[in-house]
Amino acid sequence: MSMIVNRRDLRFQLFEVLKLDSLLAHPRFDGCDQAVVEDVFDTAETLAEQIFLPLAGPVDAQEPMFVDGRVQQNAGVGDALAAFAEAGLFAAGFDEEFGGLQLPNSVTLAAQGMFSCANIGIANYAFLTIAAAHLLSAFGSDRQKQTFLPPMLEGRWFGTMCLSEPQAGSSLSDIKTRAELIDGTSYRITGSKMWISGGDHELSENIVHLVLAKIPGGPPGVKGISLFVVPRYRVGADGDIGAWNNIALAGLNHKMGQRGTTNCLLNFGEAGDTIGELVGEPHNGLKYMFHMMNEARLNVGSGSVMSALGGYLYSLDYARTRPQGRRPQDNDPSTPQVPIVEHADVKRMLLAQKAAVEGAQALILYCANLLDRRDIESSAPAKARLSALLDILTPMAKSWPSEHCLEANKLAIQVLGGYGYTRDYPVERLYRDNRLNHIHEGTYGIQGIDLLGRKVRMQDGAAFRALLEEISLTVEDTADIAEVAEFREALAASLGALQSATKDVLECSDLPRGLANATAYLDSFGTVVIAWMWLRQAIVAIRTEGWESDCFYAGKVAACRYFFRYVLPRAMTDLALVASLDDTCMNVDPQQFIGV
Amino acid sequence: MSMIVNRRDLRFQLFEVLKLDSLLAHPRFDGCDQAVVEDVFDTAETLAEQIFLPLAGPVDAQEPMFVDGRVQQNAGVGDALAAFAEAGLFAAGFDEEFGGLQLPNSVTLAAQGMFSCANIGIANYAFLTIAAAHLLSAFGSDRQKQTFLPPMLEGRWFGTMCLSEPQAGSSLSDIKTRAELIDGTSYRITGSKMWISGGDHELSENIVHLVLAKIPGGPPGVKGISLFVVPRYRVGADGDIGAWNNIALAGLNHKMGQRGTTNCLLNFGEAGDTIGELVGEPHNGLKYMFHMMNEARLNVGSGSVMSALGGYLYSLDYARTRPQGRRPQDNDPSTPQVPIVEHADVKRMLLAQKAAVEGAQALILYCANLLDRRDIESSAPAKARLSALLDILTPMAKSWPSEHCLEANKLAIQVLGGYGYTRDYPVERLYRDNRLNHIHEGTYGIQGIDLLGRKVRMQDGAAFRALLEEISLTVEDTADIAEVAEFREALAASLGALQSATKDVLECSDLPRGLANATAYLDSFGTVVIAWMWLRQAIVAIRTEGWESDCFYAGKVAACRYFFRYVLPRAMTDLALVASLDDTCMNVDPQQFIGV
Repeated sequence: MSMIVNRRDLRFQLFEVLKLDSLLAHPRFDGCDQAVVEDVFDTAETLAEQIFLPLAGPVDAQEPMFVDGRVQQNAGVGDALAAFAEAGLFAAGFDEEFGGLQLPNSVTLAAQGMFSCANIGIANYAFLTIAAAHLLSAFGSDRQKQTFLPPMLEGRWFGTMCLSEPQAGSSLSDIKTRAELIDGTSYRITGSKMWISGGDHELSENIVHLVLAKIPGGPPGVKGISLFVVPRYRVGADGDIGAWNNIALAGLNHKMGQRGTTNCLLNFGEAGDTIGELVGEPHNGLKYMFHMMNEARLNVGSGSVMSALGGYLYSLDYARTRPQGRRPQDNDPSTPQVPIVEHADVKRMLLAQKAAVEGAQALILYCANLLDRRDIESSAPAKARLSALLDILTPMAKSWPSEHCLEANKLAIQVLGGYGYTRDYPVERLYRDNRLNHIHEGTYGIQGIDLLGRKVRMQDGAAFRALLEEISLTVEDTADIAEVAEFREALAASLGALQSATKDVLECSDLPRGLANATAYLDSFGTVVIAWMWLRQAIVAIRTEGWESDCFYAGKVAACRYFFRYVLPRAMTDLALVASLDDTCMNVDPQQFIGV
Repeated sequence: MSMIVNRRDLRFQLFEVLKLDSLLAHPRFDGCDQAVVEDVFDTAETLAEQIFLPLAGPVDAQEPMFVDGRVQQNAGVGDALAAFAEAGLFAAGFDEEFGGLQLPNSVTLAAQGMFSCANIGIANYAFLTIAAAHLLSAFGSDRQKQTFLPPMLEGRWFGTMCLSEPQAGSSLSDIKTRAELIDGTSYRITGSKMWISGGDHELSENIVHLVLAKIPGGPPGVKGISLFVVPRYRVGADGDIGAWNNIALAGLNHKMGQRGTTNCLLNFGEAGDTIGELVGEPHNGLKYMFHMMNEARLNVGSGSVMSALGGYLYSLDYARTRPQGRRPQDNDPSTPQVPIVEHADVKRMLLAQKAAVEGAQALILYCANLLDRRDIESSAPAKARLSALLDILTPMAKSWPSEHCLEANKLAIQVLGGYGYTRDYPVERLYRDNRLNHIHEGTYGIQGIDLLGRKVRMQDGAAFRALLEEISLTVEDTADIAEVAEFREALAASLGALQSATKDVLECSDLPRGLANATAYLDSFGTVVIAWMWLRQAIVAIRTEGWESDCFYAGKVAACRYFFRYVLPRAMTDLALVASLDDTCMNVDPQQFIGV
């Protein structure tokens, strides 16, 4: 039993639920069929399992150190990334013109997931590089693409995103990093950037920082932010690596988890000139950066799912082999103990993990599939609809796993009991790794405001309506399936509650009050969406001949039932709270917390 | 602002809500009044803050190592415990005849809580010693008391509880450790004990292990378990320390948190004879051990509350001083940023922490007060009722904090954002520390079965009825307070739902099905009890003249409102699930989890 992937489930999600075959029929994916996808997965699984996974414990135990101005870390990190590059996985999703395989996003994301599960601390370097390369391929000049993309897609140069500063984390309008024009598109960059994952290391020949900075004289706030590509080593006209670009590592953050990834405070332009190049137009930097940020958000959601998958697989394997206790009706201590997977409460903890992991995984792959469909869509209105669906689902795809798949990791520890609390087993590390996902790339609270303050309102509610239509289509599609009547009705009821709560909030003339429970809104909306994902899976399972006697399909229906009975009702409770426009939190006087 | 205690809240809980004055009027507490209690708290706070707290980070970073057969750990651990002993805190709750101060349990538990908050990894050694001494004072022979209690209460000898074995964690009926009679009450002990906190170290002159073992020929299962006192070094007739008792440290567990406390695999009688003395009667060991276990369970609950209190205080302090972002209605980036405590979602995270911490703290102190009242109660029926209340509340006092105060720790990290995920701030450590409390001294699942399978059924439901009566008294007591009408009605409704769900389960003839959702029952029952604790606090607050303009009392009412609106409704949802006798979890076939 693999500890990093359930290939059967991936096949189900991609080919049975998302019907990837129909996407692959598009000319863009010429030559790519299910066999090719399985080959890619074989390669990824082997690499992730044989090279990334064995390093997960050591890399966690031996975190990067800042010694004599350089980062020292486990030598295996570089080797693993070299193997990832060697397998062509940096380029796999890129166009053939850049040496890529032009694979669909849903396939590359699923393949990357195996590395997330095996060792997120190493995999992050690759994902950041891929996301940075995507941004440059979308918004960089031809010269920038020619200069940066080949070495990035060969895995020789890595990428980062430099947004936050010590005084400006969630509030990007307050960044202070400055970019002063030298000539043409060359700028002198000065300032400090905080929380930069992969910000410094000795793993690649160069590091390509994508940096948000303000050009003096520009508009205040986020409208005055521009984007710059700022390499660690300057790059000559021929693409050769030149002098150090005076980006100083001021410190490494010592994290609770995801320790393989360096996380840095970087000072630009302190020791000497740091030269960056403008990407795109001045003052449009945040818009470009959102291209990378949305990909990063999907990656965060996926990483969270994969950390939880690791916990689920490990705790399932443990539960099957650990004998402890007897059935409630069996009091005879002379009988043998049963494997704990026989206990109802252990089954509950496993089913809860399965429901969270496979439900959230379905959403991540659904979003990746939306990206793929959008990329090949020729009709403008259809493309806009796919974009709108992505826009509204992204905050949920980022956030829901970070809350509910973290809970799954907590349960994985619990299945192992005391053993789970020790570092001899991977479940506590996976829990620590996953805790980050609530925070980076926009916290839970920020995603809630993005969803309720912006996404459901934009274009007069077009994205919200489009999503409700999609969900309603599934509800209608199940009318003939008696086995899912309970779920269909519950999903329809939750859609009604969601619409009603949304209306109540949007009609509230007091903006702060309307947004006061945005986090509860995000969370419960996400749960409704995951319920939808489970109904989609259950339909496919039940429409399969002989599903009742097939463990895989019967398991899908059991997890769907669990989700609708144990999880969705809580979202209904929370939606009622949202609809009540409760102001308890917004009105509490900060002096009242302690009261002395 | 203290980071380890809210003294104002302690005063409120003990003297305003629990009316400790009336307990202190009893002759047993002669000479102890509120001033004495405050003096004890002053001493505890100073020690905890000045000696325990500064060591929390270092002790976490530098975990105990097993070097040349001995435990090596941060030298400060021993110094801190010596200071704890010097202040007389080992003995504080014991009778004067043993050199104690005869302080009430509620006072000693509250004082100990400051050490839990400051540094649970060190405090555990003291708490285990105190609980072991309590067991010996209740069930030991006079000679055993004379031998062991004085050095334990002087803090020179420490104590442990040795229950689990590698093959028997939750299932004590399967322990294999043997005790063979040598003569009189002396037994030769052989076997391995796992997860022994404080099982080995160089901090005390001796270690007094309380060991569960089976005397060959005894009944099978838990009915054949006896209790032995087994010192690390044998003790002569004069109480002098003699030869090593052949208890070998076979390994240290490397934990996720609470790292200051060694956690050991111990081998008894492997290298030579390990001699133990029987405590009490043969085959009654589990009953005696439950005396210690119930105290340990209350300590675990308290420790969980205190880890969350640390997170709450720290994140509140951070939120008050960290500027970030602006109010929703304020888009002008040239205005100064506001402290994040002004944001509704940050207030939510703080209020959620306050509601969990102060609600659970109220339950812990309520239980300690029950212990105190039971100890001085002369009427047998009244004593039995207090015991019954303690019996039914203990699984909730142990479990509810481990779930909901852990969630509070998660929110404390979230308030700090990226900073909270680093080891430069204490909130991630407190989260790791707290994760243990779900597991040890009976897991969440075990507590659920204890509550639903045993406690609510015992004596024909007497404990359950007694608790409902107590809660109903509070509901009736609020009839004249208009401000709490909403809470009173919600609590009454939740009591109804609880009664009804309990009836449905108890009437179910299928035992496994009735117990299948025991964990959800435990959790939602606990939430109803904590709601009661909040209503009790709100009544006292509102009955105080001028409460609306007093931050402390107004804060109590705000937190009560939060709990009733944001937390209790979820318990209602879960109680409906329990009442439905849902069998999704118990019926899932283990083959269906992965399905391949």
